[in-house]
Amino acid sequence: MLAPQQLAELGRLLAADRVATDTDTLTRYGLDWTRYFTPDAAAVLFPKTVEEVVALVRWAQREQFALVPSGGRTGLSGGAVARNGELVVSFERMNAILELDKVGRTVRCQAGVITKTLQEYALANGLYYPVDFASSGSSQIGGNIATNAGGIKVVRYGMTREWVVGLKVVTGEGEVLELNHGLAKNNTGYDFRHLFIGSEGTLGFIVEATLRLARPPAELAVMVLAVPQLADIMNIFNAYRDKLDLTAFEFFSEQALRHVLARGTVQRPFDEAADYYVLLEFEKIAPDTETQALALFEYCAEQGWLVDGVLSQSQQQAAELWRLREDISESITPYKPYKNDIAVVVSKVPAFVAQLDEILAREYPQFEVVWFGHIGDGNLHINVLKPEALAIDDFRRACEQVNKHVFELVRDFNGSMSAEHGVGLLKHDYLDVSRSHAEIRLMKAVKSLFDPDGIMNPGKLV
Amino acid sequence: MLAPQQLAELGRLLAADRVATDTDTLTRYGLDWTRYFTPDAAAVLFPKTVEEVVALVRWAQREQFALVPSGGRTGLSGGAVARNGELVVSFERMNAILELDKVGRTVRCQAGVITKTLQEYALANGLYYPVDFASSGSSQIGGNIATNAGGIKVVRYGMTREWVVGLKVVTGEGEVLELNHGLAKNNTGYDFRHLFIGSEGTLGFIVEATLRLARPPAELAVMVLAVPQLADIMNIFNAYRDKLDLTAFEFFSEQALRHVLARGTVQRPFDEAADYYVLLEFEKIAPDTETQALALFEYCAEQGWLVDGVLSQSQQQAAELWRLREDISESITPYKPYKNDIAVVVSKVPAFVAQLDEILAREYPQFEVVWFGHIGDGNLHINVLKPEALAIDDFRRACEQVNKHVFELVRDFNGSMSAEHGVGLLKHDYLDVSRSHAEIRLMKAVKSLFDPDGIMNPGKLV
Repeated sequence: MLAPQQLAELGRLLAADRVATDTDTLTRYGLDWTRYFTPDAAAVLFPKTVEEVVALVRWAQREQFALVPSGGRTGLSGGAVARNGELVVSFERMNAILELDKVGRTVRCQAGVITKTLQEYALANGLYYPVDFASSGSSQIGGNIATNAGGIKVVRYGMTREWVVGLKVVTGEGEVLELNHGLAKNNTGYDFRHLFIGSEGTLGFIVEATLRLARPPAELAVMVLAVPQLADIMNIFNAYRDKLDLTAFEFFSEQALRHVLARGTVQRPFDEAADYYVLLEFEKIAPDTETQALALFEYCAEQGWLVDGVLSQSQQQAAELWRLREDISESITPYKPYKNDIAVVVSKVPAFVAQLDEILAREYPQFEVVWFGHIGDGNLHINVLKPEALAIDDFRRACEQVNKHVFELVRDFNGSMSAEHGVGLLKHDYLDVSRSHAEIRLMKAVKSLFDPDGIMNPGKLV
Repeated sequence: MLAPQQLAELGRLLAADRVATDTDTLTRYGLDWTRYFTPDAAAVLFPKTVEEVVALVRWAQREQFALVPSGGRTGLSGGAVARNGELVVSFERMNAILELDKVGRTVRCQAGVITKTLQEYALANGLYYPVDFASSGSSQIGGNIATNAGGIKVVRYGMTREWVVGLKVVTGEGEVLELNHGLAKNNTGYDFRHLFIGSEGTLGFIVEATLRLARPPAELAVMVLAVPQLADIMNIFNAYRDKLDLTAFEFFSEQALRHVLARGTVQRPFDEAADYYVLLEFEKIAPDTETQALALFEYCAEQGWLVDGVLSQSQQQAAELWRLREDISESITPYKPYKNDIAVVVSKVPAFVAQLDEILAREYPQFEVVWFGHIGDGNLHINVLKPEALAIDDFRRACEQVNKHVFELVRDFNGSMSAEHGVGLLKHDYLDVSRSHAEIRLMKAVKSLFDPDGIMNPGKLV
């Protein structure tokens, strides 16, 4: 709760019209795409400059007031949720693209630039920012970096981490650190850039980033394949990956597809239905690449791994095929899905999936479970849909019971309990599934170095 | 200095024949490729297991005895030098390749595996470990990771950092941390793996690593080009990089070439001499790639950027051309070169080089200066050769005088004062050229979390 004098001080630090306390704004900016928390923010602040961010953090440190960073709020673990009277610091007014370096193939921008804006800017300049996901129209670069966002091209281009060559951050002491200066090579001690990537705002705020850009890919072709057996997805992956440089290799279940089709905006890709589908994408790098892809299709069909498939004949068709995969999340949002975002090393996917399938079938007999994910990265998204009649708290409690079994299995496989969604509030209690007690102790100690007063996004991650 | 009882204890922790105190071993293992320090190690230890490393570290913590890690000792900044009576911990007996995952394309190995051994093992299994440098026949994986080694393929494949998906480390408290478990995706808090990469043994010892492997490249073609003007190297880089996916783009001076030719083992690549040469490499990914490369050659020649060149006609010729670049370091070793390993962002290379050239010509009139480096990464190696008559200490002092000017310039350009060689002992005093005082303070604090007694490679880096 902000005292009137505090509110007045914040108004002076920024400008009165960039300190919001109306219910609408508090609710909207106090929540991300996680729907399990009740927002309760004290105010929402909209700084425009790094200096303003520094002033805010120093003020918060003096007043011992907790801060929550706010990007596009598309997170799925409650990392950007304010539910304890915190101040929300929105970066949406810090949305300038500052400098393009065409020779160095980098772009420097403020934290609030929207992913899609950056992607389009890069393309307009003959370059390419390859980190992409369904939420790219809302998510912001600062949030992507704070959560090390993954997405649908990781199999080729890696996570956000790989694309950050410079960071400007404001620590919990209001200190500005300029990390790595956009350099391709710089071996001068501990690389704090990588400490901030994926730190979910708990060490400081990312205010500016320099990102690498790639050459744009050649024309992309998309295939969707019908796969009766989950285990064969890995066989198909191996066959294609050995011959083609894949830019994506995604899978989803018939159940997921049905939710997308139910919206009536896209068509089933072929007559044949199967329990699972693969969507793969590759660059038409040589004149015979498509021929190769079709030969691989024949080979996989002969092995009995797939029963039908389609290869895009145009960019428009490719985009339509992508919607079968990309629209899943949105199509199931009305069911308030409980999400598991888990990963194991790729080669262990078949064994892991077999055991996971058994657990889910046994533990969720009453719930609909929708599978999809990035199998080329070993990353599965399990979405449990809430039956309409069930209260959300009861539903969440039921899912958390099942978590015990799921995370037991993840632990047995040395897997990740949050492959790309981060920890935030939602996964906070499961950190020890993937990190040892020694690591958690050291994480807490590292946090207290960068944020000695614990004002930066408290209660999240560690 | 080890007391007899301490020596006896170490003999019990390992085995008597894995604790060496003879002068030969102490001298050999107390020094790396930096020739500016006098080795003074108390003993050299050869553990065989992680448990033995843990026992050693715990013993050292109890006895407050400093430890220095020792890999292939090919470092160029004195990171692995013992000159204050430390215990050297050699990893050469921990040299097992533990597990190949062909589907996941990863390999798990102990820290002491030699780079070339790993490269050959990968190739024998149809895969590829792309981090490569002239010292690959001696350098060890653990040392590569501890120094985030770069090398000659960074422009395509990045630094060692990009290839590490799992690390097992022993901290300065003797705690074993298993970092990231080889996962492609794992967003569960601060990524300590990246903190240990490039930490030069100051936080703990790397005992095991899981490395990503790539598909082997298609057949590689090499071109060497004669370039009269240093500034035009960037123009050539831009022209080629826009059309071809380069796997290497190196440059060296005529002066460097002369040292290589003087050894009489390789030939001048063409009759025409120029002040500078470019060596570039690309995959013959399509039937017309070489035609494209030759068309680019014509274009660059028309612009007046180059005056001669050669394209390899066989793998043997490609290997011979590579020796023109790779043999430089060895050919100048007898001159005890003082090395600057500096980097700026790629687009600033021409401006930086022009000013640097001026400084070197002005400040080193009496010394021969040999240039080479990885211009596609913005990374220049400046080697100042010691005149035979000059004492090494006087020579080093003279070079350190010039450093002031060089590092002033690096600082003006927000560059790196050690792009790939690390900090170690040699660059320790220049850390603030590339890192702010706030960063250095935080680096020291982070070190004290992982190594509270300061026993891990003290005096290096921070």
